[in-house]
Amino acid sequence: MAAEQDPEALAAARPLLTDLYQATMALGYWNAGRAREQAEFELFFRGCPFGGAFALAAGLRDCVRFLRAFRLQDAGNVQFLASVLPPDTDPAFFEHLRALDCSDVTVPLLQVCGPLLVVQLLETPLLCLVSYASLIATNASRLRLIAGPKKRLLEMGLRRAQGPDGGLTASTYSYLGGFDGSSNVLAGQLRGVPLAGTLAHSFITSFLGTEVPPDPMLAPAASQGPRVDLAACAEAWLDRVCAHLGLGVQEPHRGERAAFVAYALAFPRAFQGLLDTYSVQRSGLPNFLAVALALGELGYRAVGVRLDSGDLLQQAQEIRRVFRSISAQFQMPWLESVSITVSNNIDEEELTRLAQEGSEVNVIGIGTNVVTCPRQPSLGCVYKLVSVGGQPRMKLTEDPEKQTLPGSKAAFRLLGADGSPLLDLLQLAEEAPPRAGQELRVWPRGAQGACRVRPAHVEPLLRLWVQQGQLCEPLPSLAESRAFAQLSLSRLSPEHKQLQQPAPYRVALSDKLQALVARLRAGGSS
Amino acid sequence: MAAEQDPEALAAARPLLTDLYQATMALGYWNAGRAREQAEFELFFRGCPFGGAFALAAGLRDCVRFLRAFRLQDAGNVQFLASVLPPDTDPAFFEHLRALDCSDVTVPLLQVCGPLLVVQLLETPLLCLVSYASLIATNASRLRLIAGPKKRLLEMGLRRAQGPDGGLTASTYSYLGGFDGSSNVLAGQLRGVPLAGTLAHSFITSFLGTEVPPDPMLAPAASQGPRVDLAACAEAWLDRVCAHLGLGVQEPHRGERAAFVAYALAFPRAFQGLLDTYSVQRSGLPNFLAVALALGELGYRAVGVRLDSGDLLQQAQEIRRVFRSISAQFQMPWLESVSITVSNNIDEEELTRLAQEGSEVNVIGIGTNVVTCPRQPSLGCVYKLVSVGGQPRMKLTEDPEKQTLPGSKAAFRLLGADGSPLLDLLQLAEEAPPRAGQELRVWPRGAQGACRVRPAHVEPLLRLWVQQGQLCEPLPSLAESRAFAQLSLSRLSPEHKQLQQPAPYRVALSDKLQALVARLRAGGSS
Repeated sequence: MAAEQDPEALAAARPLLTDLYQATMALGYWNAGRAREQAEFELFFRGCPFGGAFALAAGLRDCVRFLRAFRLQDAGNVQFLASVLPPDTDPAFFEHLRALDCSDVTVPLLQVCGPLLVVQLLETPLLCLVSYASLIATNASRLRLIAGPKKRLLEMGLRRAQGPDGGLTASTYSYLGGFDGSSNVLAGQLRGVPLAGTLAHSFITSFLGTEVPPDPMLAPAASQGPRVDLAACAEAWLDRVCAHLGLGVQEPHRGERAAFVAYALAFPRAFQGLLDTYSVQRSGLPNFLAVALALGELGYRAVGVRLDSGDLLQQAQEIRRVFRSISAQFQMPWLESVSITVSNNIDEEELTRLAQEGSEVNVIGIGTNVVTCPRQPSLGCVYKLVSVGGQPRMKLTEDPEKQTLPGSKAAFRLLGADGSPLLDLLQLAEEAPPRAGQELRVWPRGAQGACRVRPAHVEPLLRLWVQQGQLCEPLPSLAESRAFAQLSLSRLSPEHKQLQQPAPYRVALSDKLQALVARLRAGGSS
Repeated sequence: MAAEQDPEALAAARPLLTDLYQATMALGYWNAGRAREQAEFELFFRGCPFGGAFALAAGLRDCVRFLRAFRLQDAGNVQFLASVLPPDTDPAFFEHLRALDCSDVTVPLLQVCGPLLVVQLLETPLLCLVSYASLIATNASRLRLIAGPKKRLLEMGLRRAQGPDGGLTASTYSYLGGFDGSSNVLAGQLRGVPLAGTLAHSFITSFLGTEVPPDPMLAPAASQGPRVDLAACAEAWLDRVCAHLGLGVQEPHRGERAAFVAYALAFPRAFQGLLDTYSVQRSGLPNFLAVALALGELGYRAVGVRLDSGDLLQQAQEIRRVFRSISAQFQMPWLESVSITVSNNIDEEELTRLAQEGSEVNVIGIGTNVVTCPRQPSLGCVYKLVSVGGQPRMKLTEDPEKQTLPGSKAAFRLLGADGSPLLDLLQLAEEAPPRAGQELRVWPRGAQGACRVRPAHVEPLLRLWVQQGQLCEPLPSLAESRAFAQLSLSRLSPEHKQLQQPAPYRVALSDKLQALVARLRAGGSS
């Protein structure tokens, strides 16, 4: 299995990105003659994040990339491990590590089967790759549910992430969760996430208005007719705009206007204005209108404005009102529908407000509150041993929260006649799958007893992605995963999609799995 | 300035890890003929995190590494930018980008001076590199203040971080902030962070007790005398331990004991037991004692136990009591002081409890609550333009929180006769530095008027690290930065170090800077 040679793979392929105890346990297994014993781990989380009843599981692509590139032979990795393990460690152990790869590993998402030593070593990196990806995908999907389908949602949290890679993961998986794009250029380059971005306040404040542009002339959009001095044209429009708005023509900041003109000269077909560097109503808005109308005369249509402070909803309403009034006054009908983008620490509550009926906001940029998931900044993913040498294993701690479900399993989604999920069923891998139309007894988690269910449809939930180190089918593209996530969410019943106090989604055990749990709890051979 | 060729530099040196608007603004500046104009940005945050009155600024090394490696020429970077910028963009702009590096950039922490286009492009990556590093260093320093100097603090949050690099940053900067080490092997390999780690529950549950170890024999520590069957020896000790503790000899789980024996055979000089897989009192503790005493007979000293669930403080007290009693009973005095490590979702409140007088906990592992900084998962670092072409710039928004301090500045710490800080002074770079013993008038931030201060000592706070692209002095090592951070914290007065409702640390402006702010606010030439 060859390592991919793209830069992402190189960055991800750091086999020592792991907790030290994985290496000490590897030595323990090796020393006990158990390194090659066949084992199975499950990667899962115990509760849905943010108080919700659903989660998007994400990170498969990164996991597969990691597995394919996993090697300890290079770059002093084994030498480094030797430096932190006992000095009298048998050199044959390090030979074993040097020869390791994942060619005996099988991965249906989120089970990992293979030699005990190898699948143990994979714990930390796989948790690291799945946990945050799933958390932010779920967070993004919640924000999408709040925003509704029509608002454009942009992730712009790179600077608030946990370093470069946190930012890349955030941009990738917030897109998967339902955002429309990101400001993060690397996510565009490496993952194909649609990009968005225009200008910051620094661009505006860098202009005094005394600068002389090298070339203030702009040709009409249709490339016919003479070139026009855009700066002069904007000054002329400013007089008319100020007169209409009842503003003194000296009020709008000339440096801001010069910045808008400079930006418009660079992006005549994609002009946007950032309105709140000085004063939205007295400077940013009239300056934007002056430049947009000057462009409009040349046949170009400005595409948007952005607000980054103050009461975003209320300002959007006022700006739309001005757009309508100016549009009518100067017969520029396209101006009415110029897009209004807002940003500034938008959380679920503020997003609810911005998405309300009648809101004039079109595009919403979210940074901190999508990237850091402040309601719950981590998903408690765990990776637990469920089987060794074909025998089930169970962690029987005194803390019932931390007990695990033993044995190699299969998982099915049981659906009603209308296609909506009834519950997800976990059973032992050896059991026959449930059949549509057939009643079966199941043991819902968290309930006292069994109940009966008759699914109209049955869907297997686990797909085999890697078998004996080989990819079984092409991985879905990011866009395909995004579409799949949205489809899955659309099929979830509204009671589970509620963001506060939802009806818990039901997961049940089969008779046989329930019996195995009971037997192991009672101290039967485990 | 040559890029470093170590793997870290390769990972960090991704110039497209930036927001798209940096690239659109770059085109705007270039188009306006202003790309090479000399500009200065400041990187800062407006409030200390977590409701505290101090913060550790961190990330300098990563920033310098990024600057030294910053190039757009390679790997299709410019081609990718061309694909997201207007199709009719002047090819000369892309030529300009291809030739870019940071050879004209000067960086005293946290000012960045250089050509306008370049220093604008640096905004997002520098924010990304400083913001989380400072946040987690500060978080770690708070946890260290709570724990006191004697408890060992270990970071083990890799699996809870925002992807691989978030984990690496977390491990590195929690060490800088005062932790003693990390579980993250890559942080040890790349950054020299001390490592710690032993075994997980899966290692324990993978053993049934029926496995036959390839070699159960262990030589004495002193290498003299015959080899002994450690498993058999542990069984013999188990009888004596159970008798002493009043337990049936069948109660301790034999698989757990087999796991301990296997681990002890691999690590006879560093044996640790994880006690809570089944039952601490009835299984984990007696099994640990049996193996530790068997090792003890051979001259080895077990080094510790770990608890990962339940009431950690109370269990530690009980375990220490048993250690003392067994130590006395079997005349193994070293057993009294075997280290007790605890982990499991430890936050500031729980840490306060674990660090209380009389606590028997020695080592505390913290994952989620150090890595995700749940009290405040991001630091609002900003990067603001303060000067272009030697002229001060100021963002004069209607939101007073978002106004900036204009002009190129110097910063000094004014200290009292006892060496404790009085306040930090910001003044214009052109002003003469304050002198020890000389009274001066300053304008404290957040206060209405001026006050007078006479410092006994004056320390400049800004150090020049990169001048015209060249490193001015060697960067401190991580260990040196860690020592410097601890020294700085030790000099901070207790009222500022309080973690809840501390006295705010005072920052003041000089007369001239205050006057410049007033002039620009009043609409003077900016």
